[in-house]
Amino acid sequence: MTKRTIPSRRFIKPSFNSLIEKKRDGQEFTQEEIRYIIDSTLDEEIPKHQLAALLVTIFFQQMSAQETAILTEELMLSGEVIDLSHIAKPKIDKYSTGGVGDKTSLVLVPLAMASGVVVPMMSGVEHDYIISPLEKLSSIPGFKSHLSIDAFKSQLAKIGGAIVEQDEKLAPADAKFYELRKETGTIPSLPLITGSVLSRKLAEGSEGLVIDVKWGNGSFIKDLEQAKQLARSMTRVGRSLKRRCVALVTDMNQPLGDTVGTALEVKEAIQLLKGEGPEDMKELVLKLGMEIVRLAGVAGSTLSAKQTVQRHLTDGSALEKFKELVKAQGGDVAYIDNPDKFPAAKHIRKLPAPKRGYVHTINAAMIARGVHLLGAGVEKAGDKVDYSVGVSEIKKVGTQVKQGEPLMMIHYNDESKLETALNYFKDAYRLAPKRPTPPPLVVERVA
Amino acid sequence: MTKRTIPSRRFIKPSFNSLIEKKRDGQEFTQEEIRYIIDSTLDEEIPKHQLAALLVTIFFQQMSAQETAILTEELMLSGEVIDLSHIAKPKIDKYSTGGVGDKTSLVLVPLAMASGVVVPMMSGVEHDYIISPLEKLSSIPGFKSHLSIDAFKSQLAKIGGAIVEQDEKLAPADAKFYELRKETGTIPSLPLITGSVLSRKLAEGSEGLVIDVKWGNGSFIKDLEQAKQLARSMTRVGRSLKRRCVALVTDMNQPLGDTVGTALEVKEAIQLLKGEGPEDMKELVLKLGMEIVRLAGVAGSTLSAKQTVQRHLTDGSALEKFKELVKAQGGDVAYIDNPDKFPAAKHIRKLPAPKRGYVHTINAAMIARGVHLLGAGVEKAGDKVDYSVGVSEIKKVGTQVKQGEPLMMIHYNDESKLETALNYFKDAYRLAPKRPTPPPLVVERVA
Repeated sequence: MTKRTIPSRRFIKPSFNSLIEKKRDGQEFTQEEIRYIIDSTLDEEIPKHQLAALLVTIFFQQMSAQETAILTEELMLSGEVIDLSHIAKPKIDKYSTGGVGDKTSLVLVPLAMASGVVVPMMSGVEHDYIISPLEKLSSIPGFKSHLSIDAFKSQLAKIGGAIVEQDEKLAPADAKFYELRKETGTIPSLPLITGSVLSRKLAEGSEGLVIDVKWGNGSFIKDLEQAKQLARSMTRVGRSLKRRCVALVTDMNQPLGDTVGTALEVKEAIQLLKGEGPEDMKELVLKLGMEIVRLAGVAGSTLSAKQTVQRHLTDGSALEKFKELVKAQGGDVAYIDNPDKFPAAKHIRKLPAPKRGYVHTINAAMIARGVHLLGAGVEKAGDKVDYSVGVSEIKKVGTQVKQGEPLMMIHYNDESKLETALNYFKDAYRLAPKRPTPPPLVVERVA
Repeated sequence: MTKRTIPSRRFIKPSFNSLIEKKRDGQEFTQEEIRYIIDSTLDEEIPKHQLAALLVTIFFQQMSAQETAILTEELMLSGEVIDLSHIAKPKIDKYSTGGVGDKTSLVLVPLAMASGVVVPMMSGVEHDYIISPLEKLSSIPGFKSHLSIDAFKSQLAKIGGAIVEQDEKLAPADAKFYELRKETGTIPSLPLITGSVLSRKLAEGSEGLVIDVKWGNGSFIKDLEQAKQLARSMTRVGRSLKRRCVALVTDMNQPLGDTVGTALEVKEAIQLLKGEGPEDMKELVLKLGMEIVRLAGVAGSTLSAKQTVQRHLTDGSALEKFKELVKAQGGDVAYIDNPDKFPAAKHIRKLPAPKRGYVHTINAAMIARGVHLLGAGVEKAGDKVDYSVGVSEIKKVGTQVKQGEPLMMIHYNDESKLETALNYFKDAYRLAPKRPTPPPLVVERVA
């Protein structure tokens, strides 16, 4: 666990009001001021309404690169920082801002493990309608999302990877920030996202981080320029905190892959781990995988990185690592060997194309909301996730369809839930007479 | 009491979060949304941290003229609206954003009364170091700041004027807003100031309002352009709510008049009511007085307005009205007849000029803070105001001084309080070898 340096001179506590006004008037916070804000958040010395005011003020006035780096470090130091120095292998994690149909983590983690990279993945809070990797993995009977920090560390030492829930001992100040950000319209703040994500990720003990910043109608970042800014902000702060960081800005203007759901996505991930599956997911896994092995120093050149990743996807070693991981966390590996064991939904029906034409745009968020409504998400505490529901065979942007041809297949159990979900699915699709140019999957690489 | 119109169609309550996000994203609120925010503030349905977030978001994203007018009206309708229609005379009030040494209200209210105008003045919350008219009037033994609404109305009917505390039944939602604004850095928000001030003022039952928007180092508005914007915002909203409104943008880059304190300022006001006193105060009283009588329709032309105001200042009728007002509110009129009755401070000492030169600038806020420290203001609940302290014979910007000559006289009782106050006073003055151009007192008239 890292210790804070003791401040060199006496710091006179400012009033919270004066801190809000300072930021309101466009000034920069000092390290001591940021530390004081974090400390006051942790011990609830700052009233909730003043912390809310401060977060909104930061949203509008931004933070400099230096302030953001300090914020990140202080948030990280608000809790336990895991030390993985006893593990000799390179330790690299991956973070995504969250996408619809994005099952990348389920493939990337075992792929990196197979390539000799240790992946200490803690999956944090997710945005709204996004289904987290852990919700997907929970469709495997017996799979445990939560490990103690000791169990996490020993699993990493033993098999080289884990996908678990964020431990509440990590960056507890950020947990308080995040709760308040959800209720104050400040989720999209660049410095607050950067601080939140990196403080948690860096507390996991990884030496480097590959970041997937998604932009588009299925991401909470709707604007490409903002996504690029976030990518730059995160890599810059990561580097200033002595971590290797690469970010890819990628498209989230349609669902990723062919499926959205929980078990449906796990099944697609298993295909990908066999070197099969939809092209967009294959490309994303390849690109992100190459970044991981290069950041880890496992591969030097682009070519050798590509070969490493492709080899482990086709020779079965990544799939083998996935089974190891599932088994280590209590999951029934028989489901991986035979994905037909996953329970199927009672009904499968098509979403018919209302006319002929090309799929012009797909609103990924609406697809996700529809799937959520079918039962794949938890609406309120106590709800049980229905692992069998979701959508599959999604026709992607640029695909030509005839009238009545399925735009996708809907897996559902409850007729009463279908109707509203169906409206979302229908509204998500725009057909046009001309073939559109599909958006590029990887827009920019920021290193 | 005005009744709200019943909404014509069913309004589905939005989440507070979605309201914050709507304003964050630059959209305008509807009347129903603003009403819902006000209602939720009143019954404390909206959590304090979300109201804080909303206020900060409004600070940064502003409100349109229409939104501000709706906000003002809804804040006004959150409480009692006094009906003065039984009083036949024109009813005009005056509002000032607050200035150091500004004893205008003590002169203007009786002056307007003497001119046949009814002035229903309720003095609201004041900013920080500003001494309110009521704190000054309280130096007159027996003077009551608080009247019931019925007593307020009957005093208005009887003598044509009153200066009392804001009744808490008026615009109660704004009181909640204001409490939160103080703690969230949102005091300087143009739409929130406009809504706050006008909702309270219009609830008093006046038909028109003369507004004195002060800008400069002694005002909470430091920027002239912002003061002009506020003047425009207030008159625009006032008009759209069917009230006659005129605003003057005036200088607050040095104290007004010769004195800052409580009894000291009352004594200066008595001089002014005799047509004497310092030139800047005389000019301000004249200009604001002319606006009042013109708005009231008592005088048509500029010339007749000027004559009306000057006559009542010199013929003793304004002073007579002041005595009527003080008497009606329980004050000892003997103090007005003989201002020497006001208790004097134990010590009076000069603030010597550190070198010869011209008074180049005076930081009015620092003078005010110094006077506050001497005991003229209430530092914490339970403190008693020391009515005898303050400063007098203030040398104004442009005055030539010799080294050691008094920049002002300091009236104090407590040696222990003097030292810090003295530092404020010293730091407030800048001397320069060349005569500066004194700032114009009235910068702009907005009608």
